[in-house]
Amino acid sequence: MEVKGKMKQVIIVLFNNFETLDVFGPVEVLGCLNEEYNLVFTSMEGGTITSSHNVGVNTQSLGDINNADILFIPGGAGTRVEVANEILIQQLSRLADKAEYVLTVCTGSALFSKTNLLNGKKATSNKRAFSWVKEQNNKVNWVNEARWINDEKYYTSSGVSAGIDMTLCFVADRFGASVAEQISIRIEYAWNRDWHKDEFYRYYQ
Amino acid sequence: MEVKGKMKQVIIVLFNNFETLDVFGPVEVLGCLNEEYNLVFTSMEGGTITSSHNVGVNTQSLGDINNADILFIPGGAGTRVEVANEILIQQLSRLADKAEYVLTVCTGSALFSKTNLLNGKKATSNKRAFSWVKEQNNKVNWVNEARWINDEKYYTSSGVSAGIDMTLCFVADRFGASVAEQISIRIEYAWNRDWHKDEFYRYYQ
Repeated sequence: MEVKGKMKQVIIVLFNNFETLDVFGPVEVLGCLNEEYNLVFTSMEGGTITSSHNVGVNTQSLGDINNADILFIPGGAGTRVEVANEILIQQLSRLADKAEYVLTVCTGSALFSKTNLLNGKKATSNKRAFSWVKEQNNKVNWVNEARWINDEKYYTSSGVSAGIDMTLCFVADRFGASVAEQISIRIEYAWNRDWHKDEFYRYYQ
Repeated sequence: MEVKGKMKQVIIVLFNNFETLDVFGPVEVLGCLNEEYNLVFTSMEGGTITSSHNVGVNTQSLGDINNADILFIPGGAGTRVEVANEILIQQLSRLADKAEYVLTVCTGSALFSKTNLLNGKKATSNKRAFSWVKEQNNKVNWVNEARWINDEKYYTSSGVSAGIDMTLCFVADRFGASVAEQISIRIEYAWNRDWHKDEFYRYYQ
């Protein structure tokens, strides 16, 4: 295990109309490492944030968060609004700048690209929304056919359930493939280990 | 579409230490049918319920719920406590008795078996906890090797992510396979359509 003595803070950034499974697939995986990672649910103002599917989640205010070891940003319909939320984007920049890793799922990468921290990096996103994603920042090297992409400290995934595969890969990179495999068996999930195996790309060409 | 004019009420029963993905995988799938299904998050007392992975979800009190068209019960560590919660089991019986369908994920079937409504029915559950599950009610025809099982109005699934496959199957049974397939493409999920294809069974023999 890479981490000793101190739990890493995983700061999960929520906003209204986030995509439910974008968040809770990766949370399930990271939550299986609960001696390593402390999961903290946040939003701009704190309080209850509601997903696209009526899930009301309690959150802390992002302004109260001093440090993110890992910054996690989901996608969903809410990102269409939040890409214009300059204060949120400033908060993402502040935390991402010092974060050890940044993970995004689905259109979370489009939102995060507004920080310009993905400029010149390879990244992917939701396949159905890919045209819109590319419009958000054309300095990112957007990769259409990818289940997920890792470039330096950034992990970005395709839509929704792709976040589970990406997060298992993230765990494998940190703790070894056997740890990730044990989690996949525990949660009875058929893990796609190959970032390039993306069967959904073809539906949206 | 089977339903016209009136949305079906999906009553999702939460308790502390429910397994995160048990709930939010199926919620993602059912939430894609948001003109058909209204998702209602409930618990014994109402208020905030916290998952095994620190997700705090707002809930309504089960006592305020008069009717469940579909009753949904997740699993997780919390079920070890709740199988002895007679008042909760009475509430599950009351709602399940009139429900059109009852869906359980993981050890949710062990909890639900305490109502005796699964007696004589085929059901499955989490593979890692199967011995404990069988001890909860030996009048259920527990099936060890199954991704999920449908018997009359009861759908029960294996652990955690098996709930996604089961719920897609449930949607296929109600609205046709093409509707379920469209959802699986939208959420970029590699749908296992075969209830008998259970690759995780062998790990726990």
